[in-house]
Amino acid sequence: MKKIILPPPHAWPELAQRPTKEPAQLEALVKEVFNAVAEQSDAAVKDYTARFDCTVLNDLAIPAGAIQAAARQISPTLQEAMAVAAHNIEVFHTMQREVPCVIETSPGVRCWRESRPLECVGIYIPGGSAPLFSTVLMLGIPARLAGCRQIVLCTPPNTEGKVHPAILYAASITGVTAVFRVGGIQAIAAMSIGTSSIPKVDKIFGPGNQYVTAAKQYAQRLGTAIDMPAGPSEVLIIADHTARPDFVAADLLSQAEHGPDSQVVLLSPDEALVQHTLLEIDRQLQTLPRQDIARQALAHSRAIVLPDMEACMAFSNLYAPEHLIIAAEQAARYAPLVQHAGSVFLGHYSCESAGDYASGTNHTLPTNGFARQYSGVSLDSFVKKITFQEISREGIQRIGPAIQAMAKAEALEAHRRAVAVRLADA
Amino acid sequence: MKKIILPPPHAWPELAQRPTKEPAQLEALVKEVFNAVAEQSDAAVKDYTARFDCTVLNDLAIPAGAIQAAARQISPTLQEAMAVAAHNIEVFHTMQREVPCVIETSPGVRCWRESRPLECVGIYIPGGSAPLFSTVLMLGIPARLAGCRQIVLCTPPNTEGKVHPAILYAASITGVTAVFRVGGIQAIAAMSIGTSSIPKVDKIFGPGNQYVTAAKQYAQRLGTAIDMPAGPSEVLIIADHTARPDFVAADLLSQAEHGPDSQVVLLSPDEALVQHTLLEIDRQLQTLPRQDIARQALAHSRAIVLPDMEACMAFSNLYAPEHLIIAAEQAARYAPLVQHAGSVFLGHYSCESAGDYASGTNHTLPTNGFARQYSGVSLDSFVKKITFQEISREGIQRIGPAIQAMAKAEALEAHRRAVAVRLADA
Repeated sequence: MKKIILPPPHAWPELAQRPTKEPAQLEALVKEVFNAVAEQSDAAVKDYTARFDCTVLNDLAIPAGAIQAAARQISPTLQEAMAVAAHNIEVFHTMQREVPCVIETSPGVRCWRESRPLECVGIYIPGGSAPLFSTVLMLGIPARLAGCRQIVLCTPPNTEGKVHPAILYAASITGVTAVFRVGGIQAIAAMSIGTSSIPKVDKIFGPGNQYVTAAKQYAQRLGTAIDMPAGPSEVLIIADHTARPDFVAADLLSQAEHGPDSQVVLLSPDEALVQHTLLEIDRQLQTLPRQDIARQALAHSRAIVLPDMEACMAFSNLYAPEHLIIAAEQAARYAPLVQHAGSVFLGHYSCESAGDYASGTNHTLPTNGFARQYSGVSLDSFVKKITFQEISREGIQRIGPAIQAMAKAEALEAHRRAVAVRLADA
Repeated sequence: MKKIILPPPHAWPELAQRPTKEPAQLEALVKEVFNAVAEQSDAAVKDYTARFDCTVLNDLAIPAGAIQAAARQISPTLQEAMAVAAHNIEVFHTMQREVPCVIETSPGVRCWRESRPLECVGIYIPGGSAPLFSTVLMLGIPARLAGCRQIVLCTPPNTEGKVHPAILYAASITGVTAVFRVGGIQAIAAMSIGTSSIPKVDKIFGPGNQYVTAAKQYAQRLGTAIDMPAGPSEVLIIADHTARPDFVAADLLSQAEHGPDSQVVLLSPDEALVQHTLLEIDRQLQTLPRQDIARQALAHSRAIVLPDMEACMAFSNLYAPEHLIIAAEQAARYAPLVQHAGSVFLGHYSCESAGDYASGTNHTLPTNGFARQYSGVSLDSFVKKITFQEISREGIQRIGPAIQAMAKAEALEAHRRAVAVRLADA
């Protein structure tokens, strides 16, 4: 981790930059897979699964029996942990329900909006050495709360054609309606286009590698909505002199272990705190199972000493982190200064792990500076908000003249007449 | 307008399809313009303006004086009409402000979310024979209410390098901070990349032709957010026997006059109403200034007789219209049946023109079936919602064991330790 002391403000923009990465040139491959799935449906999906995941499947769907049976393979401790997380996620996302509120903008002109669920959503869960069941909870629970009729989950099978029981168990407790053992570009193509087994979905959610990311972008161009643009995960920690170096180091490492391209940034007005934290990182790294990954992430990460907490907040807004931890005394007083961030953790006991798993907030968040423009996943991500209006005979008399004047000035005579014909009657 | 009587349900999907249109192959041109703007900044923007808009500009910005002077060129009637519309738009969108509400998901675990404005947004207003100032109100007002610091407007100049005073006046009353006389691909490129005159924006809003649409899609791939995918405007009207054929015809025509590719659909269980409406359309068309455009739109439009109002609602949900008018007795009782629509107009006096201009709802809405997945523009479109959490020492003790169990099962040891180090202290 590179230490930088009091950089002048004109140097900030460069320090706030993510390491540039050439976007992978995957368009040709993505197009090939999408075209094959469009033409050959399940057969193409099975072909690519054989080629990329080295397993030959008869059926893409996991049978309902296997999903129910998964509970027997999950320890009671883990089941209980998931229940705690599911409860908190449900409580927090339920609060995001919007109650329709009718407003009379002018006398006789009643307007409101109502939420309606997306009908069919797709959740992608990456494969890998460990099962990322927490993302099943983070996406499945708000989908169910929103009232989505079909919640489809795709995840790559292992070489025996199996899906980890923790993923199946998480699916069973969140209301996922169908699980398919399909991964990679072919999974995104199948959910975007629809096959004989896999339904076409309205929106695709979830993380993935560069292939999945490229496939989601391509699906978006074809008309399937996606949750948000993707990038490597990241945390920015602002720590004052009251912060505990061992806590801060642990939080930085919990982000760094995600992947070699993870980003971690430490800001502090206290140089001693920075120094102690760097020592703590070295100490904690010694026994970390994923220390190789964490070291690679730390190699392109920065610890920056800045003049004061306000400067730290300003730098953070420039960086627009996915996760922002404010490890400071009375941390809540800095909340109003947060302009751009995905999710904010206030105080010494609010570690990112809490939000990753169990506090109730969503862990699907904008990375790579997209926190400037995008919100994380919430109940809103699974609904549309439809506006309604009901105008009375008196209402149209009231606003009709304004509509007519504006339609005339825009040279849209039929728009004007739609009002005139009603005023003539009123 | 083609009349179809009681089509069997298996024929519905084809009837609900929009006329397929090959997407224009504009990528090479879009890329050229973006690259030129990235390399030569304002000079490239001026070059393309000279080439496409046939006007040579010294300055891209409209001077503040010219914006203030616009009011003198606008009739008091139109000023008053815009004031009525602005008031209603402001009232309706102010209601969409979310009040932060802190919830304790578990004892000691406090979570909430807060809205923050996008910092800099871009509004695109197309050129053409008439000035589309109503869209300035629909995008500028919520941007100002959200608290966006910079609200940039781009619109093509006429051959004299001028922008219509109605657009400048609308900009002045909505809080637009800068107006640039730039249109087409070069306007989108400039707002996406930033030039010496035109700021780089976080999100681009507004309608446009196929060039602008292609440029917005390209901007999105480069990382600039956009409001929503675009398509031709459309209305679907469901009318029962109480509907007035002259009202319904006027509403269909007000959509048909938008452009030759506009879509209008009429559904009714009452064949006589359909017949009378078609006659009314013919009658009203005779004196319509834009009858040529309307006739082209009507040529590929449909009036469909269905068994009952429930069938009409089901067909409408299949079509997912941008605008849905329910011209029926006690229309509000059908509101709960609406699943997919952009904006809904209930009853005989709620004409689409009202929502287009002055009732207060937003007229930037999802077309082309995107109402299945997307909401129209609202205050939400101009903010991010950031989640916050503040966990006490007791809180982490409460949910810590669940976090540790889940992190362990996902093989993320540093995540687990970030909790363990805090529990050891607690």
